Amino acid sequence: MPIEYVKETYQMQLKPLLMRSVLYFGSKEGIYSPDHHGGEFTCTWRDAYGRICRLANALQSLGVDRGDKVGSLAWNTHRHGELSFAVPMMGSVFHPTNIRYGREHLIYAVNHSKDKIMFVDEDLIPLVEDVSEELKTIKSYVIMTPLDKPPQTKLSPVYSYEELLRQASPVYDFPDDIPENSLAMLTYTGGTTGLPKGVGWSPRSMVLSVFGLIGPDQVNLCEEDTVMPVVNLFHINAHNFAWATAMLGGRLVWPGPHPSPEDQLSLIEKEKVTLFQGATAVLLFAMQEWDKGKYDLSSLSKVYSGSTAPNQALIEALEDKGLRLHWTYGMAEGRVISNTVTSRRKYMEGWPKEKYLQKMTRQGLPMPGTEVRVVNLDTGKDVAWDGKEKGEVLVRGLWTGQEYYNEPEATSKVFKDSWLHTGDVAVVEEDGYLYLVDRIKDIIKSAGEWISSVDLENAIMDNPVVRQAAVFGIPHPKWEERPVAAVVLKDEYKGRVTEEDIISPLRFRFAKWWLPDHVLFLDELPMTGTMKVMKRVLRDMWAEGKLKV
Amino acid sequence: MPIEYVKETYQMQLKPLLMRSVLYFGSKEGIYSPDHHGGEFTCTWRDAYGRICRLANALQSLGVDRGDKVGSLAWNTHRHGELSFAVPMMGSVFHPTNIRYGREHLIYAVNHSKDKIMFVDEDLIPLVEDVSEELKTIKSYVIMTPLDKPPQTKLSPVYSYEELLRQASPVYDFPDDIPENSLAMLTYTGGTTGLPKGVGWSPRSMVLSVFGLIGPDQVNLCEEDTVMPVVNLFHINAHNFAWATAMLGGRLVWPGPHPSPEDQLSLIEKEKVTLFQGATAVLLFAMQEWDKGKYDLSSLSKVYSGSTAPNQALIEALEDKGLRLHWTYGMAEGRVISNTVTSRRKYMEGWPKEKYLQKMTRQGLPMPGTEVRVVNLDTGKDVAWDGKEKGEVLVRGLWTGQEYYNEPEATSKVFKDSWLHTGDVAVVEEDGYLYLVDRIKDIIKSAGEWISSVDLENAIMDNPVVRQAAVFGIPHPKWEERPVAAVVLKDEYKGRVTEEDIISPLRFRFAKWWLPDHVLFLDELPMTGTMKVMKRVLRDMWAEGKLKV
Repeated sequence: MPIEYVKETYQMQLKPLLMRSVLYFGSKEGIYSPDHHGGEFTCTWRDAYGRICRLANALQSLGVDRGDKVGSLAWNTHRHGELSFAVPMMGSVFHPTNIRYGREHLIYAVNHSKDKIMFVDEDLIPLVEDVSEELKTIKSYVIMTPLDKPPQTKLSPVYSYEELLRQASPVYDFPDDIPENSLAMLTYTGGTTGLPKGVGWSPRSMVLSVFGLIGPDQVNLCEEDTVMPVVNLFHINAHNFAWATAMLGGRLVWPGPHPSPEDQLSLIEKEKVTLFQGATAVLLFAMQEWDKGKYDLSSLSKVYSGSTAPNQALIEALEDKGLRLHWTYGMAEGRVISNTVTSRRKYMEGWPKEKYLQKMTRQGLPMPGTEVRVVNLDTGKDVAWDGKEKGEVLVRGLWTGQEYYNEPEATSKVFKDSWLHTGDVAVVEEDGYLYLVDRIKDIIKSAGEWISSVDLENAIMDNPVVRQAAVFGIPHPKWEERPVAAVVLKDEYKGRVTEEDIISPLRFRFAKWWLPDHVLFLDELPMTGTMKVMKRVLRDMWAEGKLKV
Repeated sequence: MPIEYVKETYQMQLKPLLMRSVLYFGSKEGIYSPDHHGGEFTCTWRDAYGRICRLANALQSLGVDRGDKVGSLAWNTHRHGELSFAVPMMGSVFHPTNIRYGREHLIYAVNHSKDKIMFVDEDLIPLVEDVSEELKTIKSYVIMTPLDKPPQTKLSPVYSYEELLRQASPVYDFPDDIPENSLAMLTYTGGTTGLPKGVGWSPRSMVLSVFGLIGPDQVNLCEEDTVMPVVNLFHINAHNFAWATAMLGGRLVWPGPHPSPEDQLSLIEKEKVTLFQGATAVLLFAMQEWDKGKYDLSSLSKVYSGSTAPNQALIEALEDKGLRLHWTYGMAEGRVISNTVTSRRKYMEGWPKEKYLQKMTRQGLPMPGTEVRVVNLDTGKDVAWDGKEKGEVLVRGLWTGQEYYNEPEATSKVFKDSWLHTGDVAVVEEDGYLYLVDRIKDIIKSAGEWISSVDLENAIMDNPVVRQAAVFGIPHPKWEERPVAAVVLKDEYKGRVTEEDIISPLRFRFAKWWLPDHVLFLDELPMTGTMKVMKRVLRDMWAEGKLKV
């Protein structure tokens, strides 16, 4: 028979997600946020919708039309949240920009995206003033201040967010006919190697990501939850938490401008937050503060982290508090891919604690909606599930990106044969758990075999004299590459440790050919803004003879 | 700016849903089913996949190609489940047929769908033999028997399911390129008015329905669950439970051939079922059996019903056992639309029990992913949320049907302006809860006002002398229509009750103009196969003078 088709003209839209809270939980306090100048903001879902409509009218009056880009440089506040709801619901494109970009990257991202308006938090104005002459497409600035007038600034023309809202009508007719695969959001990569690259998101991918998130084996999100997304809105994976909370009639607590660990924990206590979402590094800082014993965090029942893998100590500290850390592996190009915890892993019951904690640091199983392959770096064939054979992680799925925005060359390198080539190197354990062991650009090939720089680093950092370590490959005439360790000692050990002191404990754990050829003792390692070691810089320094054995 | 689009070629597919169990929960016992001849069947997800591949090869060898229709007349067994997985994954179309159809409807549905092969359960062979000469498109029959040879039958050519599987290869390469909106399943309506009508389902609507189902405020489905779908697979809403269970790595317990309430409860006990899904009527029978105290049903934590609204006694009986009844409002054309329970309805805490139980009989709030309007029957405008103004329920959403299969005329009557016109009459309560009060064809219009036949029936059935009641409208020269009540008395009251005995309790609850003009005492009411009163028949009988006052 010829293939028949089912009529399916109903498009995936963002508007019905928000409208569910507005209609059915309209009188519930839906939004809370600390504000600038020590204020605080709270409102019902119905009132939040009134503000979102006012914002849409204000945007329209500033000339924002369908398809136009609206940029932001802002913290996670209620205003930034309102912008994240209003812009894509208008059929325009929301582009939250990374507040940690350097000058060059900020200019590049805003010009590449062609943002028409830029929304800026009060305390971030200097960052924008510094680059405003280079921003080619911005027609006006809106300062996200509670004040009627924007602060003194050279940005021009410039408006006050609240004043714009006050002047605008609280009624707006958001369109129902936005194509589900039209561009609704743009987020740019961190730019650790080269210039940032944009990834575009549609209503379709956002709706699918929201539905993929809420299940009990994933984030387990429900109407009862009070959700605090600490992950900044310039990361795409902050957005599905906000939209999901709206869809379910939950409650959103925005952490407000530049939240410290103290601010975060005080908010959890005061606003009875049930779900905390933050990067692993943010969670580590929060735990240090938590251990001071000053907070009643008994409302908290769900803790989600991402970005870098948590260490066992963090997982154990949370388990001691009765909380299981759910952590998800993902990336700017692929959103959330896998997570460690499923509701039941019965065979783990009765495992020794050490083994269990180690397992919980793994990247886990693909989420429903994503497909994962790990392919041998040499043969391109799927690796064995033996915890040993290394390969690159390939991903595709319902909300995985399929291209960079207006970057055909970069796209062709990363998105191939329908799969996103993540550049992550992993093994697959016997039960299918994904375990990342390196980045492709950092893994070391020696005599045709692969050496994991991450495994060596972790082992070196187990040495109590070591504060920080990075292992990188250097060219070798016979073996192709050989590992070298760069080590920062703890202050009290500086000058008192030999290369052999570092290498000898490794002999018990690794084959001889894995051991680094050299150990370099450095005062510090070159770091990115997101606290990752820049191994590329170490390799360049080695090549230039700047690192001495 | 012109609208830009995001590359999104990844299609929603059914195969990755099943493959997640096969890959990551492959050694887990995934399927259990009682079998014909008192046997039982159990296997892991990996072995289930082997059988599904064999089935696909067998189907191919019987000439089933992409787009071909595969029919079934069968109970919910593991074989029927395998067929429900294999056929749409091949790109063919699965058409499970209603085993309760009469001869005419069975012939009509199979011919209308153009089924090429028909899979038949052993004990249902006589139903098919009775009509086989009228089935125009069937090329062969497969008997779903554990035996090597099919039983003696005049169906021809005929094969044994297990023998076909034994001869087939356990390796099959299911395609990755099935268009997401291609026809994957066909289910036909009950045919209570006129001939059955087909509704087509695509991989897209099925995937969306599965994701829409699993959230904690909905079915709350996770890997830990052992799911028993008692709703027969010829109802589309049985399928999302099976696919969702596969996607999450849960466990499926099929209830097997013609399951009695005893069978269902024994299975819950024996297989430690956590989630029971059955029509309200099925659940009522199960409760009667449960109350005999013979079963340990402590594994059960989630009970879902559908079809007709549960009464307060059922909800209370379950709450007494520590179970909250989750019931969902839906229909053949729209799948699941709304449900009563959300995780939190804080304002209900402290309500009088009676008020709470009454609320739980309502149709509740639209699920995330569906949009609901209730429009005044006269003006077409959205009704007030006052629990009084009546209107027709309109639905649209991510998995709502948008047409009947090859029925343009019926489609144009029911699917209009992007909304499914359900024919249900409802009010909306203050908190947005939907409450169905009638069917459009049964509601009575008198002097320009609407009288709910359902409200009157419920009130009449509160009278302890009444076994059953139906209220229907008769034409009236002045008031347009007037209500008439048809009443079946309990045996002990027959001949001892007057019209006034029935009417007088109603005077306290309804305005005078609501009271039925006549009360007809009948020995029985005309019923459908699904135990609904056929009011159309009552109206016809009245018109023909067959009902006497």
